[in-house]
Amino acid sequence: MRRALLLLAALPALAHADEGMWLFNDFPAADVKKAYGFSPDAKWLEKVRLGALRLANGCSASFVSKDGLVLTNHHCVRSCLEDLSTPQRDLLSSPFVAKSRDKEEPCAAFELNQLVAITDVSARVLAAVKDHEGAEFQKRLKMESAQIEQDCAGGDRKKRCDVVSLFNGAKFHLYQYRRFQDVRLVFAPEFPMAAFGGDPDNFNFPRYGVDMALLRVWEDGKPRSTPEALKLKAGGANENDLVFVAGHPGGTERSRTIAHLELQRDVVLPWALLNLAEMRGRLDQWMQGDPERTRVTRSRLRSVENGLKAYRGRYEALVAPGFLDQKRAEEASLREKAPAETKGAWELIATAATAQRRLHGRFRLLEVGEAFQSELFGHARMLVRNAEETAKPNGERLPEYSDARKPFLLQQLAAPAPIAKDLEKATLTWSLTRLRNLLGADDPLVRDVLGRESPDDLAAKLVDGTSLHDVTARQEVLDGKRALDSDPMLVFAKNVDAAARAVRKQYEDEADAPFKKGYEQVAEARKAVLGTTGYPDATFTLRLSYGAVKGYGAVKPFTTVQGFYDRLTGKPPFAATEPWLKAKAQLKGTTRFDVATTNDIIGGNSGSPLIDKAGDVVGLVFDGNLPSLGGNFGYDGRENRATAVHGDLIYTALEKVYGADAVAKELKR
Amino acid sequence: MRRALLLLAALPALAHADEGMWLFNDFPAADVKKAYGFSPDAKWLEKVRLGALRLANGCSASFVSKDGLVLTNHHCVRSCLEDLSTPQRDLLSSPFVAKSRDKEEPCAAFELNQLVAITDVSARVLAAVKDHEGAEFQKRLKMESAQIEQDCAGGDRKKRCDVVSLFNGAKFHLYQYRRFQDVRLVFAPEFPMAAFGGDPDNFNFPRYGVDMALLRVWEDGKPRSTPEALKLKAGGANENDLVFVAGHPGGTERSRTIAHLELQRDVVLPWALLNLAEMRGRLDQWMQGDPERTRVTRSRLRSVENGLKAYRGRYEALVAPGFLDQKRAEEASLREKAPAETKGAWELIATAATAQRRLHGRFRLLEVGEAFQSELFGHARMLVRNAEETAKPNGERLPEYSDARKPFLLQQLAAPAPIAKDLEKATLTWSLTRLRNLLGADDPLVRDVLGRESPDDLAAKLVDGTSLHDVTARQEVLDGKRALDSDPMLVFAKNVDAAARAVRKQYEDEADAPFKKGYEQVAEARKAVLGTTGYPDATFTLRLSYGAVKGYGAVKPFTTVQGFYDRLTGKPPFAATEPWLKAKAQLKGTTRFDVATTNDIIGGNSGSPLIDKAGDVVGLVFDGNLPSLGGNFGYDGRENRATAVHGDLIYTALEKVYGADAVAKELKR
Repeated sequence: MRRALLLLAALPALAHADEGMWLFNDFPAADVKKAYGFSPDAKWLEKVRLGALRLANGCSASFVSKDGLVLTNHHCVRSCLEDLSTPQRDLLSSPFVAKSRDKEEPCAAFELNQLVAITDVSARVLAAVKDHEGAEFQKRLKMESAQIEQDCAGGDRKKRCDVVSLFNGAKFHLYQYRRFQDVRLVFAPEFPMAAFGGDPDNFNFPRYGVDMALLRVWEDGKPRSTPEALKLKAGGANENDLVFVAGHPGGTERSRTIAHLELQRDVVLPWALLNLAEMRGRLDQWMQGDPERTRVTRSRLRSVENGLKAYRGRYEALVAPGFLDQKRAEEASLREKAPAETKGAWELIATAATAQRRLHGRFRLLEVGEAFQSELFGHARMLVRNAEETAKPNGERLPEYSDARKPFLLQQLAAPAPIAKDLEKATLTWSLTRLRNLLGADDPLVRDVLGRESPDDLAAKLVDGTSLHDVTARQEVLDGKRALDSDPMLVFAKNVDAAARAVRKQYEDEADAPFKKGYEQVAEARKAVLGTTGYPDATFTLRLSYGAVKGYGAVKPFTTVQGFYDRLTGKPPFAATEPWLKAKAQLKGTTRFDVATTNDIIGGNSGSPLIDKAGDVVGLVFDGNLPSLGGNFGYDGRENRATAVHGDLIYTALEKVYGADAVAKELKR
Repeated sequence: MRRALLLLAALPALAHADEGMWLFNDFPAADVKKAYGFSPDAKWLEKVRLGALRLANGCSASFVSKDGLVLTNHHCVRSCLEDLSTPQRDLLSSPFVAKSRDKEEPCAAFELNQLVAITDVSARVLAAVKDHEGAEFQKRLKMESAQIEQDCAGGDRKKRCDVVSLFNGAKFHLYQYRRFQDVRLVFAPEFPMAAFGGDPDNFNFPRYGVDMALLRVWEDGKPRSTPEALKLKAGGANENDLVFVAGHPGGTERSRTIAHLELQRDVVLPWALLNLAEMRGRLDQWMQGDPERTRVTRSRLRSVENGLKAYRGRYEALVAPGFLDQKRAEEASLREKAPAETKGAWELIATAATAQRRLHGRFRLLEVGEAFQSELFGHARMLVRNAEETAKPNGERLPEYSDARKPFLLQQLAAPAPIAKDLEKATLTWSLTRLRNLLGADDPLVRDVLGRESPDDLAAKLVDGTSLHDVTARQEVLDGKRALDSDPMLVFAKNVDAAARAVRKQYEDEADAPFKKGYEQVAEARKAVLGTTGYPDATFTLRLSYGAVKGYGAVKPFTTVQGFYDRLTGKPPFAATEPWLKAKAQLKGTTRFDVATTNDIIGGNSGSPLIDKAGDVVGLVFDGNLPSLGGNFGYDGRENRATAVHGDLIYTALEKVYGADAVAKELKR
């Protein structure tokens, strides 16, 4: 299981064919032309940019019909399927096909973003923070960003304006999005087929995932007209074809310094892995043998298992023999040649890393909320903070409560998603127990939180006592019609908030600020020494990657329908569902199922369209292979592969398995 | 939770007061005299050596009465208490007090060892392996050791002779033990008091554990006469007193090279931690709300939680800022001055570490058996291997099947311990699932093991189908009266054994052999450069450490009965049991409860007597504090503390809480 991950570093940029998550406004067209004989022009780039979408919950997507149809992954809409399910109607067990447009059901918590403009605001932001550090640096950065975003959105809730920090703070671009908040479910296969092969097959290739779903953007009570939609094509994506991925990679750490990478290795990744491993064990056992518990838990379990495998792969890449040594040598060479005014950067980053080492545990527990794992707590904190933050001037708020960003938060609070109280109590009990185990029973915060109560008693009291599962109650708090001290969960959230805010501030001032300062200088040094900054680390903003349809080693680039039926054992996770057993005779064994490509992607790219030279969609990215997990730190085209549902399978599934003919017809128009 | 572990390295030896787990035949008496004004003489050392005992399951103990009474920890006898429990009589929930000697109950799987002689056999062993490496080195080492052990034990099952590799293979001593296999339970408090404070208080101080138990060695149907017993004294262990710990520390890694420590950090510890974290989650949820499941699971859960916390502390010590840097500097200095013929040692060890990186996962899964977590599987493997190994000449067997060592294995097979089938199925399912997740569904071994079956179906088939829960069936297989292919678990164990043996052999030849060779040279270099070898890394053999009764920082060296009652919340793990609630009025608040000392100990020392200058027992070691968890890699007397049940509390508990007056009287005789 410990693969020889032959990772190559990201320095200098473009050292490796097909490497890079490129900015749309800085795409290396000439390099692609040289390598593949084709170069996307400005028109192509604009068309693809407008066809691509971001799901605010952390995924990518694309418009695929003129009437607002959106293609994304099943795992990107799982939370919506859960929200729409009841003990009587389980949308994860069975496929969902809206019989007509008026039967499409709302994904109430979903927001889709379409990137309509990019502006470089580096000069304005950098001028505001120049000569400042620590708390003052953070304060000015926050104020200036909030001001730019407010100037851009101008109070229009349909606009979303984000100042994006690129190259770890060396450049700042303003991304202006069209925001869509009426998103409805059109089609989703059943979960066991979307995640066929379960945890064993996750991140593997050959692979047989039907990880697809269709949404539709509505506006003013009818489907939005989207002439900018891309075309979903069958028959595309042949071996060695040049293909592009337009999507929103969530984050990479390719330009991190050694001190920063060691922090990941020693603290950040082990912390996350241990939490996920225990959570996997608890969730899996908690739901065993209980159908209703299984119904409300399996999606979360899948996410936990996915995270565990992804982080484990990432960790193994980081500790693979020679990997850090090579990075170290590159860093030494860059430091030696770096201009004098940037030489302090690496020490600054090391200082930040030392601060984060000290703060990481408390930050994760209190501010990220690992100690209070509960949706109800999440709502409560949002309400408590919203009341406090809204009273402040826009530029002084926590950024997520700024006028330009708040609509997404308010949408979460207003979404009538069911909350499983039984699971809430369990996760809150586990996380409070973990808090006590990690900080010790004598830690002042633990004493304050638990007093003489046991974690399970406190969790039961809070979950049973709160009204926040009721969307009306949340709205009343939001509107000031219900007092913040009227609800035990609100009181609890308020009680722990001072400690959470304190560690967040410490983290921002002592770690985040010197990180940003340091990387600003590293980017300068890189530009001075290497003559290029390459592509920035991923930031959950739109990027374009290019590559080819290609296998690796003995592995072919396609799987087929025949291969799928051959893999069945009759037992989960290798059991076929009814629709696929019934359809077998109608399907052609040679139809391509999933496809592997060399595109450089990472988490957040889920749901991205796989696009051919013509700008048409020929597949739907849903995963990477195991070697791609090291992609967080570097790209190696020899083994790193993105995996996508092939365009052929998308049509096959809709037309021959799920009877979603109307939708298939709409896609072809 | 991330403590600043100011660990100091172990090089040069004796750099730190109170550091060291010393050999009885190489004790630094002069240094102790200088530091504390007292020096144990040869008579003192012999008396303590004969009073000290080893529990073959991984603990320490001591004789404390002339009639064979043995003092150890509750957590060292937990497996016996479980074996003696039934759904109707739960020896973990209630205290056990044998009303008379004939009511003492057998701990059938327990073996006690008393060290009667130590002989240096380095010359003989080193001559046998000189000029050999890899597989041949291992083969000769094994043969020579087996021969020496056989010469020593001469077929006498009451003798146990172990060739012990010290200084990681630079020296070899023959330890000759008196072996006791009729061990009976005399007294044990209830589990909630032994482990008072649960996981939050584990490895903490101040602490309130009543982690004590009494056993008795029987022989020929009556208590063995043990005039060599030590005396358990009340009123001892006052602040700053010089105290000794005679016990069996299980293992340390203080003289490991950097390459070897990096292997621990990158591979060995994360692997173990992730397994334990998931197991903790599973076990805890599996038993929730089910009293019978709780009864058969809570002890294992406690062990898992203990391991998780211990390894986590160890990991944090290893990645603490500066720790490895200091070790690196020391290694560089030693390498520079090392004699020419030893200079290759570090490269050799690095090669071994690289091999282990590659092999570690498969070795743990297949040979250690993490993929087949089941007592029944353990019995099956032992039976399968015993049949194969016994057919070979003594010197060519796997060492645990050599004539000198086999009695302990046979005792395990013959012990009529109940096996919880429900738990067996659960753990086997989990571990088979983990095997498939880690190696992938297409790994040939996984395909071979699981075929088209799911882990839970296979586990159920094996556990329900085997007869090996029945001690008679096991005996029949052992005696050749039942065929090895007559039982599905035996067939399964046989089926996976080739792969397990293959990875063991690879590990021994490619990792273990160069490790041994390399450390032999490191020890030579150390002797040449530093003029001393100091004390060897711990090897689960008898060692003596010295130190003082002492707190740290603001923490006092004692807790008291009053402090215990103050800590109660009424909820587990901070709830008192009936006996302690009832006894409250009879107890003096000032009676000392647990005690902290600077002695250098580690896992395996559990149950060790805390001994004063007179050679009397004044406490019972049961744990270390959190900073002591870094003790695996180095000792820092400023914070590292051993924790023991105070002698005063032992008498108080026996006389005033549990009504075990007869035993208390026997202890005082």
